[in-house]
Amino acid sequence: MALFVQKYGGTSVGSTERIKNVARRVAKYYAQGHELVVVVSAMSGETNRLITLAKEIQTNPDPRELDVMVSTGEQVTVALLAMALKELNVKAKSYTGAQVRILTDNAYTKARILKIDEDRIRSDLKAGYVVVVAGFQGIDEANNITTLGRGGSDTTGVALAAALKADECQIYTDVNGIYTTDPRIVPEARRLKTITFEEMLEMASLGSKVLQIRAVEFAGKYKVKLRVLSSFEEEGEGTLITFEENHNIMEQAVISGIAFNRDEAKITILGAPDHPGVAYQILGPVADANIGVDMIIQNVSHDGTTDFSFTVNRSEFTNTMGILKDKILPHIGARDIIGGDKIAKVSVVGVGMRSHAGIASKMFRVLAEEGINIQMISTSEIKISVVVDEKYMELAVRVLHKAFDLDRAQ
Amino acid sequence: MALFVQKYGGTSVGSTERIKNVARRVAKYYAQGHELVVVVSAMSGETNRLITLAKEIQTNPDPRELDVMVSTGEQVTVALLAMALKELNVKAKSYTGAQVRILTDNAYTKARILKIDEDRIRSDLKAGYVVVVAGFQGIDEANNITTLGRGGSDTTGVALAAALKADECQIYTDVNGIYTTDPRIVPEARRLKTITFEEMLEMASLGSKVLQIRAVEFAGKYKVKLRVLSSFEEEGEGTLITFEENHNIMEQAVISGIAFNRDEAKITILGAPDHPGVAYQILGPVADANIGVDMIIQNVSHDGTTDFSFTVNRSEFTNTMGILKDKILPHIGARDIIGGDKIAKVSVVGVGMRSHAGIASKMFRVLAEEGINIQMISTSEIKISVVVDEKYMELAVRVLHKAFDLDRAQ
Repeated sequence: MALFVQKYGGTSVGSTERIKNVARRVAKYYAQGHELVVVVSAMSGETNRLITLAKEIQTNPDPRELDVMVSTGEQVTVALLAMALKELNVKAKSYTGAQVRILTDNAYTKARILKIDEDRIRSDLKAGYVVVVAGFQGIDEANNITTLGRGGSDTTGVALAAALKADECQIYTDVNGIYTTDPRIVPEARRLKTITFEEMLEMASLGSKVLQIRAVEFAGKYKVKLRVLSSFEEEGEGTLITFEENHNIMEQAVISGIAFNRDEAKITILGAPDHPGVAYQILGPVADANIGVDMIIQNVSHDGTTDFSFTVNRSEFTNTMGILKDKILPHIGARDIIGGDKIAKVSVVGVGMRSHAGIASKMFRVLAEEGINIQMISTSEIKISVVVDEKYMELAVRVLHKAFDLDRAQ
Repeated sequence: MALFVQKYGGTSVGSTERIKNVARRVAKYYAQGHELVVVVSAMSGETNRLITLAKEIQTNPDPRELDVMVSTGEQVTVALLAMALKELNVKAKSYTGAQVRILTDNAYTKARILKIDEDRIRSDLKAGYVVVVAGFQGIDEANNITTLGRGGSDTTGVALAAALKADECQIYTDVNGIYTTDPRIVPEARRLKTITFEEMLEMASLGSKVLQIRAVEFAGKYKVKLRVLSSFEEEGEGTLITFEENHNIMEQAVISGIAFNRDEAKITILGAPDHPGVAYQILGPVADANIGVDMIIQNVSHDGTTDFSFTVNRSEFTNTMGILKDKILPHIGARDIIGGDKIAKVSVVGVGMRSHAGIASKMFRVLAEEGINIQMISTSEIKISVVVDEKYMELAVRVLHKAFDLDRAQ
């Protein structure tokens, strides 16, 4: 008998039929004697419907009011799931984020969870209820409704699991686990039975969008056992996300997966003066415009100048180039700004690479053998990322997947 | 400079265009320096959409969960209206019933307001905000979401006006006031400039469904000045609902209006023994089955028995007949039960009739002249109701409207 927090995303609750399926799965666990807290997202399409409605009124909807609106999406789903459970004679009760009191900061549309009052949930569990909680939402100190931003329901699930010290947080999605890479690109891609938090973080942020990155960070911080499962398969153990310290490094493959991302654009400031504060002068106005930056690369300088490169989301490319040309180039005395959005980032990820030399050189050799030119390189302790022309992305993923033996059993 | 509570119903906020119209009207009052609290219903059709969704899961949706769901309807509207106001550069802030803390009992789907925390609204008004509040909903002591039942947004408006001691509660609807009777039946029907609370109560409960009866009771209890206006007309003063004590009885017409209702059915227990407790024996099981009873008539007895009649909503007719035949007739020793659902109730209403004799006889004479047979009669201090064959209803309304000079100016 365990306490599970289960999270079901928008596709899993996309219709009343699917909600009934979720209820049957929850009822099965309930019948086995487990305590269950179920976190659900809005029915797929609902959040977009609400945002469209808001935009009919305001081109840029007021963030406070937008949160009041979109939070209704999950509120509808929790009620429907609680009804479906009662229909199966399972005692169930729904809660909004405000009702649980999932306390967040007041950063509307992208709030962060500060604290969860778990007392009421605990007493409901003790009384034999399945507790159904609206994902993605909370309330600030002043009782304003907030949302955690897209995908925030994962974070709600993990945060509840942490607060309740649940045995496992199970994230049900439309895939049955984390794969070595995208099976649509590499048919030989395998489901990983386990993946470390750090690898998962790199995989998620690099574009394997199974879990929300903040949720994974949260799970890591509070040592929540996290499992990704399919809501459309009856059986299947999914992929368990582990802490490295619980992980037998001897059995760990060198590389766990190949991640990729074609949503970025690269920008390079050529001949920037190499003195303290320049990096801040360049990225300050970009950050002020709320543009997220991913890779940042600066090589050693010569002749007192250096080339400074970074990548941004492709949709921000034109905007960022404009800011740089108008506000930055005239002030810092760089030679020029160049950029391109026909790029893709490909990364090999694995905690094993820490103790294995030669991963980088093997990666670069494999790409060279295929005639793929590398435009940028960036590394962390457990990943190596390269930027290549986007037309080579799929080829790069396939050859790397094979070269690192990812198609063989773990 | 006054404090107005304005309430807009589902039709008035039925589309984003209409919400923008409401915002323009509110902004006009705001520009005149008034303080404004605006109560809105769900967009028309939304509550039914949500109930349909719930019924796909449960034939009889769980009341607690149903309230969680349907309360999202108003939550969406308050956010949209607040956005529309901001778009007109009016400071505005939305609140759900829970956020205001409109405290109710825990009778889900038909809760009653117990108390309103008005402090936060007051300080927002002082800070120059238009406060937009979700109608129809509240929260109980244990923080469960409740709804006040259909039409409950009127009650929210009146309760807020009472709590804030507002100068006027303005109910915006799709009609421009209260009429002497339904203009679709009598084209000469006139808009009343004023109507007393008591008349309004009789008119509302008798089927002139402009205002929710509970809202009118509430307004009467807390002496809230209530005005019914059209949300589709730019000008127009609507109908002010007054307290009789502020009303110059000399100027009061004898009769204010003709109300009617064809949603009822009549039931008569023939030859019931005329001894204490029989009325309770008859109506107890009916009340236990949650069937509402409207008119109740019992005439003097002869030979120790009496005929006991009452009316119920037409949709409850078969059900009520069944209960009476199975559970009541065998026990009380009455002769028989008869009933019919092809009836209509027609009423003349007016505080003036208290001081004028002969209203009843005039009413009965007018109906007799048209050959309309009266099946039942019931009276209160300010109304006389008759039950007639439903096929005569429109004729009865027309001839009474004319006979009491309601087509002439007030």
